[in-house]
Amino acid sequence: MNYNELTKQIKLDSYMMSSLPIQIRNAALSNIIEALLAKKDDIFLANKEDLESAESNNEPAPILNRLIFDSHKLKGVIDGISSLISLKDPLFNLQLVRELDQGLILKKETCPIGVIGVIFESRPDALVQISTLCIKSGNCSILKGGKEAAKTNKILFDVIYAAGIDAGLPKGFMTLIENRADINELIKCHDSIDLLIPRGSNSFVQYIMSNSKIPVMGHADGVCHIYVDQSADLDKALPVIMDSKAQYVTACNTLETLLVHKDIAAELLPALQNSSYAGNVELRGCPKTLKTIDCIPATEEDFKTEYLDFILSIKIVENLDEAINHINKYGSHHTDCIVTEITGDATKFMALVDSANVYQNCSTRFADGYRYGFGAEVGISTGKLHARGPVGLDGLVTYKYKLFGNGHIVADYVEGRKNFNFVDK
Amino acid sequence: MNYNELTKQIKLDSYMMSSLPIQIRNAALSNIIEALLAKKDDIFLANKEDLESAESNNEPAPILNRLIFDSHKLKGVIDGISSLISLKDPLFNLQLVRELDQGLILKKETCPIGVIGVIFESRPDALVQISTLCIKSGNCSILKGGKEAAKTNKILFDVIYAAGIDAGLPKGFMTLIENRADINELIKCHDSIDLLIPRGSNSFVQYIMSNSKIPVMGHADGVCHIYVDQSADLDKALPVIMDSKAQYVTACNTLETLLVHKDIAAELLPALQNSSYAGNVELRGCPKTLKTIDCIPATEEDFKTEYLDFILSIKIVENLDEAINHINKYGSHHTDCIVTEITGDATKFMALVDSANVYQNCSTRFADGYRYGFGAEVGISTGKLHARGPVGLDGLVTYKYKLFGNGHIVADYVEGRKNFNFVDK
Repeated sequence: MNYNELTKQIKLDSYMMSSLPIQIRNAALSNIIEALLAKKDDIFLANKEDLESAESNNEPAPILNRLIFDSHKLKGVIDGISSLISLKDPLFNLQLVRELDQGLILKKETCPIGVIGVIFESRPDALVQISTLCIKSGNCSILKGGKEAAKTNKILFDVIYAAGIDAGLPKGFMTLIENRADINELIKCHDSIDLLIPRGSNSFVQYIMSNSKIPVMGHADGVCHIYVDQSADLDKALPVIMDSKAQYVTACNTLETLLVHKDIAAELLPALQNSSYAGNVELRGCPKTLKTIDCIPATEEDFKTEYLDFILSIKIVENLDEAINHINKYGSHHTDCIVTEITGDATKFMALVDSANVYQNCSTRFADGYRYGFGAEVGISTGKLHARGPVGLDGLVTYKYKLFGNGHIVADYVEGRKNFNFVDK
Repeated sequence: MNYNELTKQIKLDSYMMSSLPIQIRNAALSNIIEALLAKKDDIFLANKEDLESAESNNEPAPILNRLIFDSHKLKGVIDGISSLISLKDPLFNLQLVRELDQGLILKKETCPIGVIGVIFESRPDALVQISTLCIKSGNCSILKGGKEAAKTNKILFDVIYAAGIDAGLPKGFMTLIENRADINELIKCHDSIDLLIPRGSNSFVQYIMSNSKIPVMGHADGVCHIYVDQSADLDKALPVIMDSKAQYVTACNTLETLLVHKDIAAELLPALQNSSYAGNVELRGCPKTLKTIDCIPATEEDFKTEYLDFILSIKIVENLDEAINHINKYGSHHTDCIVTEITGDATKFMALVDSANVYQNCSTRFADGYRYGFGAEVGISTGKLHARGPVGLDGLVTYKYKLFGNGHIVADYVEGRKNFNFVDK
C-alpha cells in the first residue's frame, strides 16, 4: 500500500471531518451502537476464532483475557459510546472572545487535531473506544491493533466503518492497518498525520518516538509510587498499597515502588508482609527495609523498573523531601500517591511531584479516563506540550490531576461494591 | 561546562519555582522593573558596544535595527512587565473539580511546564520578555541569545537575575548560555529540560527538532496566505495585502502568497501593482496572473517559499475550495486570511484552513502575543500537541485563533494612529 498517498487523502477528509456538526457525529455513534448489536453474533464468532488461534499458539493467560470480546465486553463498549453521545461537544467551544480594538474581535475556539494514528494492544474493545472518541472529537483515526485480535478487529472495523459512512462521515474517517510491517511506513507520513499514540511496551513506544517526526502522545513507562508518610492511617495505607500493586498487575498505573517514612516502617512493613495479598507479591527492599522485614534485596535497577508483575520494591526514607526527590528522579511522571493524614504534607507532595497524576490516600489505579468520568481514553500522556498559536502565559502552563481520597481503592468499583457517580462541581 | 549536571540542578530548582505563590513571582517582576531603570545607563552602554561591533562587522541594517536597545525599547519591555504583573496568575487554576464518588474529588489544576530552553535571535528585548514570561508562569528558563547582542544580553541577564534572586526566586530560575557551541550540549539534556523553543531560521529549527529528544514548540516556516474572495471590498483588500507583505518584511507572520478569485483578479491585480507600495514589492505570478498583469513568472517552488523579503507570489484560483486546498497543501499552518464580505465564505475558510491563526479582513501581522493581549509571547507554535494525564475528549482537541476584522492593519498601531484597548468579553 502507498501510505503517503493514503494518508494524504485521509488528511483531506480530515478537514471535512473537522467541520461536521455534532448532530452528524452523534448520529454516527448511535448508528454504531445499533450496528454492533445487530452484528454481535458475527463479532463473537470472529473473536472465538481469534481465541482458538491464541490458545493453540499457547499465548499466556493475560493475553487470552485481554483478547476476549463477549457480551460483557460488548455491553461495556456500548455503555461507553452511550456516555460519549451524552457528553458535550468538544468542538467549536470558545475559550476566549476578545475585542482587540473597536470591531477587531479575537475568538479562541476548539477544533480537532486532524489525523491521529493509534497503535494499540490486543484488546479489541480498545478499537471501539479509540475510534468512537475520534469520531466524537472530529478526528480521523488510523488504527493498528494487536495481531492476536486480527479477526475481531477486522469485523469491528467493518461494522463501525459502515455505520459511520451511513451517517455521513467522510470516507477517510477511519482506517485499519492490518500488517505490523506497515507501521514503519505509517510513521514516515509526517506531512499528513498530526499525532501518533503508541500504546504498548516501553521499547515499542521508544522505537516510535525515535523513528518518527510525528509528535507522539503517550507514555513509555509507568513507574508509579506510593509514599506512606509518618502520619499515615494504616487502615487506609495497606488496602491502597495492595490495590495499587495487585488489582491488575500489568496496567501502566500499578504501583512499582513503595516509599515508607522511617518512623512508620516498623509498623507498616510487617503488616504489609502479613496481609492477605502478601503471598502473591515479591517484596524487594532497600538495606533499611531488610533490617525491618525478611525480603529480597533491591538493587538500584529495581527502583527504575516497571515490573508489570507481582513484585514491589520498597525504600525507607528519612522524610517527605527524600520521598519527593526519589519520585522525581526515578519515576516516570505518570501517577504517584501520598498516604497521609497531614494536609500540609499532601499539599507539598502534590505541588512538588512532577507527575501527571498526584494522589492522596487512594489507589494509583484510578488514573484512567473512564474513572475520571471522561467516558474513555485514547491513552495516558506523561508529556506536557500543548500550545498553539502565539504562546503567552497560557501556553507556558500545563496541568496535573490532583485526586484527594480517603482510602479509596479501585477493586471496590471493579468488583461492584461501589459505583462511580460523576457530578461536576 | 557540564550541562547534564547544570540542568539537573535547574530541574530541582524548578520544583521550588513551581510552588512559589504569585506574590513572590510578581514581586520579582516589580524588582526587575526597578533594576532595569536603575541600571539603564550601563545597559545602553553595553548595547552601544554591541552596535559598534555589529557596524564594524558590516552587519545588514535589519540586524542592526533589531539589535538596538535604547530608552524606547526599555520603555517597551517595562510596559510589558507591568502588564504581566497585572495579568491573572496562570498557575493553580482549577480547570475541573469533580467528585468521582462520595469523598473522592478530582481537581484539574494548572502548573508550570518546568524547565524551558529558549534560543532566540538578535533582539535583546526578547531576553527580557521571555525571562519575565517564564517567571510569571513559574518556569525556569535557560536562554541563548544572538551573538551580536552578547554584551547587552549579559548585562540584561545580570540585572534581571539579581533582581529575581533578591525577590526570593531559586538560584536556577534563569540561566544564560553565552556560547553557541553549547546549544549542542543543551539539547542532549532531555531528562532535565521539558521544552525547547527555538526561534530563528527554518534550517536552525529543523536542526533542533531532528537532533533533540526534548519536545520542541515553535514553528520552522511562516508561509502565510491571503485569499481575496470574489466578494472582497478592494478598499480593504489592498491595504491588508500591503500591510501583511511589507509592514515588517522579515517577520514570520508576513504574507508570502496572494490567492485571488478569478472574477476579481482583473480589478485587484492592476490596482495592487499600481498601489503606492508597488515599487518595493516584486510580484511573481502564476500563468493566469501573467495574462492580467506584467510580472515575473512564479515557479512551483515559489509557492513553498518563505521569502522574508519584498517578494510576493500570486495565484489566481477558480473558487474558495481551491484557495483552501492550496493553503493546506503549501502553507505552514501559521496564519492565513480571507478577504471577503460573505460571512459564509469566511466561516468555511476559517473552519477548513488548518492553521493556528485564521483571519477575515485583517492583516496577517496581527499574529503576535502582544497584539492578542497576552502581554508578550515566547514564540508562535504551529504544532498541536498539548495533552497530559488520561487523554479523553479534551486531549483530542486543539484550538485555532479566529480573528474577525474590518480592514484593520498593524501599521495603524505601530505608527501610533490607533491604540490597542484590550477588553475581554
